[in-house]
Amino acid sequence: MNEYQNLSRAFHRINQLAHATAMLYWDEAVMMPPHSADARAVAVAELRLIQHEILNNKPLSDDLNNLQSSSEKLNLLDSWQRANLAEMARFINQANAVDKELVEAQALANSKSEHAWRGLRADNNWKDFLPIFKEVVKFAKEEAAQRSAHSGLAKYDCMLDLFNPGFLSQDITKVFNQVKRFLPSMVDEVIEKQKRDNILPLAGPFSIENQKQLGLATMKVMGFDFNRGRLDVSHHPFCGGVSEDVRITTRYDLDNFLGSFMGVVHESGHALYEQGLPRKWANQPVGQVRGMAIHESQSLLFEMHIGRSFDFINHLRPEILRAFEKSDQDPVWSSNNIIGAMTRVNKTYIRVSADEVTYPLHVILRFEIERDLIAGTIEVEDIPEIWNQKMQEYLGLSTDGNYKNGCMQDMHWPSGAFGYFPCYSLGSMMASQLMNTFKKAEPQYLRDFQLGDLTKLRDWLNLNIWSHGSFYSSSDLIKRTTGEDLNPEHLQSHLKARYLK
Amino acid sequence: MNEYQNLSRAFHRINQLAHATAMLYWDEAVMMPPHSADARAVAVAELRLIQHEILNNKPLSDDLNNLQSSSEKLNLLDSWQRANLAEMARFINQANAVDKELVEAQALANSKSEHAWRGLRADNNWKDFLPIFKEVVKFAKEEAAQRSAHSGLAKYDCMLDLFNPGFLSQDITKVFNQVKRFLPSMVDEVIEKQKRDNILPLAGPFSIENQKQLGLATMKVMGFDFNRGRLDVSHHPFCGGVSEDVRITTRYDLDNFLGSFMGVVHESGHALYEQGLPRKWANQPVGQVRGMAIHESQSLLFEMHIGRSFDFINHLRPEILRAFEKSDQDPVWSSNNIIGAMTRVNKTYIRVSADEVTYPLHVILRFEIERDLIAGTIEVEDIPEIWNQKMQEYLGLSTDGNYKNGCMQDMHWPSGAFGYFPCYSLGSMMASQLMNTFKKAEPQYLRDFQLGDLTKLRDWLNLNIWSHGSFYSSSDLIKRTTGEDLNPEHLQSHLKARYLK
Repeated sequence: MNEYQNLSRAFHRINQLAHATAMLYWDEAVMMPPHSADARAVAVAELRLIQHEILNNKPLSDDLNNLQSSSEKLNLLDSWQRANLAEMARFINQANAVDKELVEAQALANSKSEHAWRGLRADNNWKDFLPIFKEVVKFAKEEAAQRSAHSGLAKYDCMLDLFNPGFLSQDITKVFNQVKRFLPSMVDEVIEKQKRDNILPLAGPFSIENQKQLGLATMKVMGFDFNRGRLDVSHHPFCGGVSEDVRITTRYDLDNFLGSFMGVVHESGHALYEQGLPRKWANQPVGQVRGMAIHESQSLLFEMHIGRSFDFINHLRPEILRAFEKSDQDPVWSSNNIIGAMTRVNKTYIRVSADEVTYPLHVILRFEIERDLIAGTIEVEDIPEIWNQKMQEYLGLSTDGNYKNGCMQDMHWPSGAFGYFPCYSLGSMMASQLMNTFKKAEPQYLRDFQLGDLTKLRDWLNLNIWSHGSFYSSSDLIKRTTGEDLNPEHLQSHLKARYLK
Repeated sequence: MNEYQNLSRAFHRINQLAHATAMLYWDEAVMMPPHSADARAVAVAELRLIQHEILNNKPLSDDLNNLQSSSEKLNLLDSWQRANLAEMARFINQANAVDKELVEAQALANSKSEHAWRGLRADNNWKDFLPIFKEVVKFAKEEAAQRSAHSGLAKYDCMLDLFNPGFLSQDITKVFNQVKRFLPSMVDEVIEKQKRDNILPLAGPFSIENQKQLGLATMKVMGFDFNRGRLDVSHHPFCGGVSEDVRITTRYDLDNFLGSFMGVVHESGHALYEQGLPRKWANQPVGQVRGMAIHESQSLLFEMHIGRSFDFINHLRPEILRAFEKSDQDPVWSSNNIIGAMTRVNKTYIRVSADEVTYPLHVILRFEIERDLIAGTIEVEDIPEIWNQKMQEYLGLSTDGNYKNGCMQDMHWPSGAFGYFPCYSLGSMMASQLMNTFKKAEPQYLRDFQLGDLTKLRDWLNLNIWSHGSFYSSSDLIKRTTGEDLNPEHLQSHLKARYLK
């Protein structure tokens, strides 16, 4: 076998181990009995270690170096193989930056912490979580330090690079500061304006079975392929599995169906991206999603621009009435009232149920904390107090002693994911920018949307985003599709058009 | 690290890969969407290949040989470590007998065949299954040939050795011929005797939810640990997962609750064995179950000797009445009538729902076919006709054109498991022999059973079987517990006592 084939074979194996790990992760969140966590953590740590060993292997690095330094050999590769090689190089370099012992210890600590978090968050128990979580942060900082020494990037930038290659802390700080300039006053303005609306509450209870049926019907309208995916229940909703078997989850609240309803739309947006990846490259790095900001742009495009649009709701309204046995004549269940209820803007504690206007402030808060935590300018013990201060500053809310709805609300940190949060708001900006371009490219889109027909949108996203896998960089993907660099003004225009007209 | 530590580390890794494979297997049968099978097959094949590569590795074989040839080093090992070493040697030798390419191709073919079988069996479609299944048999025969060349055992003996080390085809043929001498006439005698019984049918429908509740209640009485296991639904019931997370499945029939009820007892018997294995050795070979005949002895002990006993049913009767909303006064639901319905003997097509008297004849039929198939004296195309002939001979039933209820009924062959079937009847004999010893050791057992208290039985099995893992050989385990070699007369006595008194 030549160098490219060796590399390709190694990454095939890594992808099969990733398949197993993804399914074990889904199983842990959805199916696993409570006392099996320790054995599972050991198994997942071992699979991760094997992946790491494959990447952290002298002959493989030699193959990579030989290939990269021979223009003759590179010329034999086609453009997809070359893009694949670039991704392989990225992963090999990332893996060689971190000690094997750290990878193993970290996987174990993260898995244990995530499991502990599931129980302790429910009990608002920061005290017992703190020592477990400190291990996670200790290892994350050690990881960042090792990566920094290897790549020359700043510590937190190394973590950002894992989820969304190419975006640096200072770029994000700059864009987020731009958002901070217009958003807090816009939130107040929208809340003030909405005081004049008379929205009737969508009162429950909404049975779990009926919510599930509505979720499945919605996924069908969106074009989710149930032959290659499932919907289940977990404490924290996510989109997992592999592109040939996408597992999305939701959680149900008897008194409020909108959380699960829009959660399903959001995760289905992620799922459509996964299901649309180029199958020919399913087991190679270039066939995977292009970073988490693009991933979030797809979920947010569907959640915010489709799911919360009048036309989508108006089309699904008969389904909603049927699911919850509501009368067509009841003013509560008019499309206008439903959409009104779905676009309420409030200052609240929980990111995942926050509205799209306040959402970026939740993200900016997390970004600022994790940036400083990894940089080492704040400590784990300080998090609850800083969280409280920033929540008061950005949204006027106190989280003093309220860990459950404060710094313990998200699974990201407990599972060791630092550098992920900014992706949500980068994705939100991308979604607005992409929709702006799509609407210009398909001026007839509204008529299709009114009929619940998303075919053209799916085809357009498939053509411009999904089918490219990791062929282009995130910024190239946005630029070649929309004709300009990432520009937060599209988010601003979208929010203005929806909330202040 | 010294040799033992190296070996121990390698087997730790193999066990974590086995953890992942076991969970993927459960997921495929219980959860996976239909079009995800190909990707899953590729993933499972790769995990199996990694396990195979670990075992099939010169430095590891060298470690094994060095250790085995040094009495000085062996003397440093305690008795558990030495038993562990013997199991490690067995696995390494087995793995080195088969080519890497064959392992990979076979895993793929078996996984595809098993998936195809799920759909084609339902359609009674032997024709489309044949070419897929021929691949499975082709690889199984190639495997047997390679193993035979390596070990010197006959081909089919090599396959038997994989599931139940130490039992040869000729031993089994001898014991089965002994059973064939008394069983066919006993079947006729029992059927004739039962014609005089007036058993009222246990008429349904029985809702799936209520059957599930009864199954869960039964598992609780049996002592299944729900913190380390689950009950789910699959087309073909099985006990899977790992000892720290045992996943049993059942299937429900609205018109008949007994199939699922006793199926749950059977799989829970397997599960109790798994959950009772020595935890200290959970990730090493010596900590695993001692072959499939012992495994079946545990499931059949619980299904036949406990589940179908008057005392167990009498104890669970209030649970059954509650589950299906039946009257305490209804003669259909008296303990005697229920137990009568549960011990009907009939000549039927399906092994898994066969009664305990005819069951060994189903197994003997399969044993004789797979023995000759692997030996090469019959071909895959011949199976339906031979099946039909033997069913007519042993049970007076024709399966002409009825593949679904004939040779396509079991998942064993479609998934590539040849050499497993005899374990069921070896297990059945062991179960009778073990119960005979237990009853002598605990003369007060009946009083406990009448109260639904199985503690003493579980403790006795734990002490004598479960906690030993693979420390003793199957035959030693039976001999040291019961004081004699495997003896089919205990089965004969049990059947006589239950059915002809």
